[in-house]
Order: sequence, then C-alpha cells, then structure tokens
Amino acid sequence: MRKINLAIVGCGIVAKEHHYPALNKLKEKYNVVAVNSKTRRNAEKFSDMFENHPKVFDTYDDLLDWGEFDAVDLALPTEYNVEFVQKALINNKSVFCEKPIAINTNEAKKILGMSALSSSVVYIAENFRHISAHYRIRKIIDSGKIGKLQFIIWKQLIGMKNDNKYVETIWRKKPKHIGGFLSDGGVHHIAAIRIFMGEIESVYAKTKKISDYLGGDDTLFMTMNFKEGYIGSYTVSYALGDGRIKIDIYGDSGSIKIRKNYFIVETEKEKLTYKIPRESSFANEFLDFYRVFNGAANIMGDPLEAIKDLAVIEAGVSSSVKGKEVAIKNFL
Amino acid sequence: MRKINLAIVGCGIVAKEHHYPALNKLKEKYNVVAVNSKTRRNAEKFSDMFENHPKVFDTYDDLLDWGEFDAVDLALPTEYNVEFVQKALINNKSVFCEKPIAINTNEAKKILGMSALSSSVVYIAENFRHISAHYRIRKIIDSGKIGKLQFIIWKQLIGMKNDNKYVETIWRKKPKHIGGFLSDGGVHHIAAIRIFMGEIESVYAKTKKISDYLGGDDTLFMTMNFKEGYIGSYTVSYALGDGRIKIDIYGDSGSIKIRKNYFIVETEKEKLTYKIPRESSFANEFLDFYRVFNGAANIMGDPLEAIKDLAVIEAGVSSSVKGKEVAIKNFL
Repeated sequence: MRKINLAIVGCGIVAKEHHYPALNKLKEKYNVVAVNSKTRRNAEKFSDMFENHPKVFDTYDDLLDWGEFDAVDLALPTEYNVEFVQKALINNKSVFCEKPIAINTNEAKKILGMSALSSSVVYIAENFRHISAHYRIRKIIDSGKIGKLQFIIWKQLIGMKNDNKYVETIWRKKPKHIGGFLSDGGVHHIAAIRIFMGEIESVYAKTKKISDYLGGDDTLFMTMNFKEGYIGSYTVSYALGDGRIKIDIYGDSGSIKIRKNYFIVETEKEKLTYKIPRESSFANEFLDFYRVFNGAANIMGDPLEAIKDLAVIEAGVSSSVKGKEVAIKNFL
Repeated sequence: MRKINLAIVGCGIVAKEHHYPALNKLKEKYNVVAVNSKTRRNAEKFSDMFENHPKVFDTYDDLLDWGEFDAVDLALPTEYNVEFVQKALINNKSVFCEKPIAINTNEAKKILGMSALSSSVVYIAENFRHISAHYRIRKIIDSGKIGKLQFIIWKQLIGMKNDNKYVETIWRKKPKHIGGFLSDGGVHHIAAIRIFMGEIESVYAKTKKISDYLGGDDTLFMTMNFKEGYIGSYTVSYALGDGRIKIDIYGDSGSIKIRKNYFIVETEKEKLTYKIPRESSFANEFLDFYRVFNGAANIMGDPLEAIKDLAVIEAGVSSSVKGKEVAIKNFL
C-alpha cells in the first residue's frame, strides 16, 4: 500500500489536538507535507509541531497550485466543506473531511454528487464510527444476549461553559451549520445510535435556546422511531448539565448501560461490566482512510453515512419548528 | 369539625395496604362503619382487620339502602367509578374516590358534571398530590434558586414482573382504563410533574407493548411542552428496568435531582442533599378529605385536577396512534 502525502487545511482545535497526535502514530502511512490556514501565523505554528516542518501555504489555492500531495485533510469550519472538497477533487486530490459533512443535508448532497463523479476518495471523518466499543455493543445486541431489542435512552447534559475552547470558536458562535452545536455534536451521537439500533425512520423534537453564548439552540429533546420498530429518546443539552453521558439500551430480556469508560450488560442471569478500551478513534479513522485510499471500500467514511447522521438532527430541528413528527427520508 | 362515618367499597390491594393503615392513624377523624366488596369473603376478611368490625354488605345497593354513613371510600377497578360515584351522590353521600378518576377523560367529565351539581363532596384521591416533598421542590423552584426553569427529564423504568401483585389483578390484566398501566401509574407521575412545572400544553409520545402479561402497552416515551415554555421528557416502562426513579429538573443556573429517598439541589455555589421524609401520603389525603368534608375548599381532590392528569396520558396514547403532537386541551 502506498504512503499518503497529506496536506492539512485548517489548523484549529481538531487539527492540533486530534489529527496531529493521530498522524504522529501513523508515520509509516502518512507524510504531512503541507499545511494551510486562514492566518499564516497559525499555519506556521502548526507546521512547527511536526518534525519535518511541512510547507506553509497562505491560501488553499496556492496549496492546490503547488499540488505535490495525494490528499487534503479538511479540518475547517463546516460552511467551507463543499467549496474546499470541490476544489480538491478538481485538482484530483483525495479528501479526508471532518464532520459534519456540510451545513445542512441539501449542501451535503453536492458533496455526495461530487463523490459519485470523482475517481478520488471523498471520506467524511466521523470518529464515533471508529470507536471499537460501539461495534462490540452492536455485536452483543445482535447475539440476542439482551433479547429482542426494544428501546434506547440517550441522555447527555454536556453543560459547556462560556470559556470552553469549542464555544470560543468564532464559527461556532455564529453557526451556519444547522442547529449549531445540536448538529456539531449531534452527528457523533446519531452515528453511534445508528450503529446500535439501525436506521431511524422519523423523529419528533423540541429544541430550546437556554444559554446566550452557544450561538443558537443548545438543547434538544427528541423521540426517535426506528425502522425496525424500536423507539428511543435522545436528550441533549450543551447549555446545562454535569457532562455525564448515560446511554441505556433495552432488549426484552436484558440491558446495556453505557457510561463514560465502561458499559454494563445485564440479563437475569448475570451482570458483566466491560471496560471501554482507551484508543484513538482519530488514528483509527486515518488508518481506515489509508486503506480506502489504497483501494479498500469506503464504508465508514461514505458521505451518505454522514448525510444520514446529519439528516436526523436536521429532521429534529425541523420537527421543533413545525411541531410535528418528521420523516428522515425528507432529508435523504 | 365532624368525624366522618365512612363506608369502604372495594377491599383490594389499595384498601388493605394503603387506606386501612392510613385510617388507622386517623381514628379521631374517621369511623369505618361498613365495608362492601364484590365477594362477601373478601369484605369479611377486610372487616376483621378493624377493631370495630364494620358491617359487611353484599352489594353496594344494600349498603346505600342502609345508608348510615357520611361518605364512601371507592377503592375499585377504575371502570366502576362513574356509576359508583353517581349512586353515592344520589344518596347524598360524599365520595372519596381512588385515581384514575375514570377510564378516560370523556367518562371523567360525567364525574365532573355530577360534582358540579351535587352538594356532597366529590374528592379524587391522588396521593402524589399529598407528598410534602413535591411542594418543597416546587417552592425551591419558585424561589429562583436554580434560576429560570428550563426542563424536566423523568425516567422511570419500573420493570414489573409477572408475579407482581398489581399485575395479577384481573381488572389490570384486561384494562378498560386508557393505556392500562400507562394511565394507572401515569396519572401519579403527571400529578407530580404538574406540581413541579405547571400545566402541560401538548405532548408527543410513542407507546410500545413489550411484555405479554401487562394487559396493553407498557412503555411510553413522551415529550411534553409546558404552557410556560419549558420542555420535558417522560420515559416510563412497566415492562423493563430496575425500578429506579430518576427525575432531573433544570433551571438555567442549577438543578434538582430527585431520587427515591432524597433530592439534590445543585447550584454553582452549593450542592445540598435533602432527605425525602417518610410520611403516609394516604393519611395526608384522608386528612385533607376530612377538612374538605367539613367545609374547606376542595383543591387537591378536585375532579378537574384528576382529569388534567389523565388528559396528559390520554393525549400521549392518542399521539402515539396518530404519529403527531397532540394538544391537551382536546381532552379537557
């Protein structure tokens, strides 16, 4: 398999705190050869983090004109994704692009269209699809251990403070992506919910704006109706709460309770606690992109998967406005 | 104030386990002078529990013909409430009647009508309106301690087994009351929610039948929209779960977390745990009925309050069938 020469575009929190350490673990698979940011100073500082000091480009166009790389890693404000993906594909570069795929599903479909036409890879990076515990849980469900699957209750009151680094990001303060934090964080959660429970058919939701610093609605109470007849509630607040995550999945003869670092599988016979292993979901996704770039099928990075995650949140936001249940297929 | 001569009609679980001990504490306020049950043997056994061995009547009509009492205590399968209330009022007897008020809000309105016409008291006994901690919590909310009220999350996975004594009750196995356990238990919860958060304007819900022994749908996932703009989720399953109750109420600067025996009030400054005092909510409601019988206003036993509780559950059941948000006012 061929090593990837990568150009990183966008040098914000995600690039520095997640992509950099992940790529550091994958030096045999990636050369980071160039970086580009809105401000040169940020790009230079980011370049200095790497041993090989990747080339710094003032603009994305300059980077593409230079062209001595295989793929771009787009770690940008969501609103730029469509344009930046397009330019990369025009220049025959493959794309590794951070979630959410786009500011809404309509925009996201442009990426889907480009991806269908291009021979380059378009990979939407959703790290919740690269957490091995999620598949382990799905396997336990599929094994029938907890009986016939019935419902999921996802409760996560995140309570982001005013000085949270994500909150302080300018593009998050005035979000163009639908629902602001509701989609920014929400697509992660929906990705996991879809792994556990399969596809969602319709939702009903109420959103609320509680804080004055989160750039839009920050609280979502949603009921989900799954294709297979399961039901679920997804309750999230970025404004309020203690940050604890509680996910309860019930089958008719057992349950799986997922917490931060562990999950408990309980049946009438036994109660087993499983540690959630420490792993880098970001390294996992770069590893998967490496395989896809070298010819493997693009399953976890398929833009359609990313659209399906976003569609559920968009349907929730739409439901809250309309005061009625909304079908997901309207957004696919 | 005048002592009440009481005839107890229905000698099932509630009469034996809740009304009997409550009345035992209120011997200065109540004489239990007669009992009546569908089967004479049950009524005799129940009469034997009392020191004074109240008279046993084979039928409700016989009891009413005898007539030497002030009020009936109706602890009956819900489907009989309307008829039994009517007969009591025709005989100028006051009524203390167990919740749910009736099998649905349409039927309940007959009781409301009778109550409006009669000079006797019609008191619907909802013991969740007689738990002092509920009012203490409301007071804390009203004090502004947790800031502007935002939402409530009520999660109670009750997990009733096949051999649960309530499950084994024949009239609960083939429920005529709407939603079966969903309303039987649900009116309690809605009564508490209304104390905490005020009136509910509309709901969206999904119900599910998971067990084969609970006589109808046994699981309800509901989103509530409150008149004052608050939102809430109410997630209950009588089929599955560990029985634990978790109620979280959030204001924009604090929270109240209610568990079985205690509640925690948390703000940025402090975290205080309050014990929920052991008390008999049933004794409290009989004490209140005693006051109302002697001329006090009927606030907590007002049939309209009971209808409001039932209307929310009925709206939830209706919402699940229709797949859309339903306004509570349709049922009032």
